Amino acid sequence: MLLIKIGGGKNIDWDNIAKDIADVTKKEKIILVHGASAIRDEIAKKLSSPTKIITSPSGITSVYTDQKALDVFLMVYAGLVNKKIVANLHKHGVNAVGLSGIDGKLWQAKWKKETYSQVNGKTKLISDNLTGRVEKVNTELIDLLLKNNYLPVICPPAISFENQIVNTDNDWAISIMASALKIEKIIVLFEAPGLLKNIHDQTSVIKKIRKEDLDDFMKFAQGRMKKKILGAKKAFELGLREMYWGDARIKQPITRVLEGNGTIIS
Amino acid sequence: MLLIKIGGGKNIDWDNIAKDIADVTKKEKIILVHGASAIRDEIAKKLSSPTKIITSPSGITSVYTDQKALDVFLMVYAGLVNKKIVANLHKHGVNAVGLSGIDGKLWQAKWKKETYSQVNGKTKLISDNLTGRVEKVNTELIDLLLKNNYLPVICPPAISFENQIVNTDNDWAISIMASALKIEKIIVLFEAPGLLKNIHDQTSVIKKIRKEDLDDFMKFAQGRMKKKILGAKKAFELGLREMYWGDARIKQPITRVLEGNGTIIS
Repeated sequence: MLLIKIGGGKNIDWDNIAKDIADVTKKEKIILVHGASAIRDEIAKKLSSPTKIITSPSGITSVYTDQKALDVFLMVYAGLVNKKIVANLHKHGVNAVGLSGIDGKLWQAKWKKETYSQVNGKTKLISDNLTGRVEKVNTELIDLLLKNNYLPVICPPAISFENQIVNTDNDWAISIMASALKIEKIIVLFEAPGLLKNIHDQTSVIKKIRKEDLDDFMKFAQGRMKKKILGAKKAFELGLREMYWGDARIKQPITRVLEGNGTIIS
Repeated sequence: MLLIKIGGGKNIDWDNIAKDIADVTKKEKIILVHGASAIRDEIAKKLSSPTKIITSPSGITSVYTDQKALDVFLMVYAGLVNKKIVANLHKHGVNAVGLSGIDGKLWQAKWKKETYSQVNGKTKLISDNLTGRVEKVNTELIDLLLKNNYLPVICPPAISFENQIVNTDNDWAISIMASALKIEKIIVLFEAPGLLKNIHDQTSVIKKIRKEDLDDFMKFAQGRMKKKILGAKKAFELGLREMYWGDARIKQPITRVLEGNGTIIS
């Protein structure tokens, strides 16, 4: 069983991905998780509530999620993007079902009511942030769909233990999900050919990382890549065997990354 | 088994509905279908593409759905509203799973590529309308969820036989779904206490309609109510036994309408 996570970048080619998934899923069950950040930012701007990014004291960026931001999140992730991916998969003969982390409490998260943010060198306490970390996965629902030949297409938000809808980090969520479902391989595709030594040089892909050395590679990670490293660390801590990072903009992106085009962590 | 359809009006009290569903579903399996027209219109306006209504030569109104309108539709129905309903049901202990008609091809529709619209007394041909009528239902997916104690929360859009996402009429869709699932009772709740003899008099509820007489009541139907009568006619034609129309703004709206508060068609 493969867990595939596709980022939410602007140049991700969903038609190629759907085509490749149709091929790969003939041999192996797939669970798909996706982002939608580029379109989210676009719609948020149009609705006059642009996405606000906050930076934690340890330098990790995340989205500040008040009720307005959460509404945009629901619209774009669980509505617009999730359903278009599902329809695209159907076009390629894949019987997809789209779910958010809220449905059947698929992703239960611990609501992190208080977050610290660095603003102009000062640490500020944010107490109305609707975010959380996934801690529990409804594996029965996923198994039920897989057993009946549906391909689950999953996106945030999650639902908290108090039944509050909360934004959540996808890279963390897939680690928890892989562990809960005893999945040994995760594929993560985004708008780069892998982890780059030099962000300005697309040929500087780091081909292999030993899981024990993940911390040493934090220095190469920019922006969202930092969260991918943190997510990967968590996944290996919980028993993952292999993680593949590759390019979501090319043809046969899943087949290609499994062939070694990208960064392999093991 | 009960099929409940809740309209998309502004004053619908989802907290009361969720509470009542939690009670009723202890005795009977429920499938929920919902609208979201009021919020759809609001968001469409904010995104500078206000909802356009067209009127067929026979006087039935519907939404003109180009790609922009369909995007708003996906955002509001399948995203914002569907997921908030699901979370609200979880708050009341109901294990809900939200699905659109696209997921698992739940609602397959015949894409109606050409529509006629009355504009200033003239009949105009519209050829880019992304709408269709539901003809086929994935009953296996619904049964699978019900058997495993999930309550399906379903909304449009549907998916066409060519795998195009299409807007669809909910009242027609529930008739097809009831027939496919051999459901004998449909409850339809909206922002009125039933079908009114006089739209300005909330006490003028028509208590009983014989299914054979539905056509005679068309004269009392305003706007969307016309589609409800057409949907009801179709449902009875396909074997429905009883349909209940009642108020979605009151406490215990499902229990109340089943007790006779509203319009009963049989």
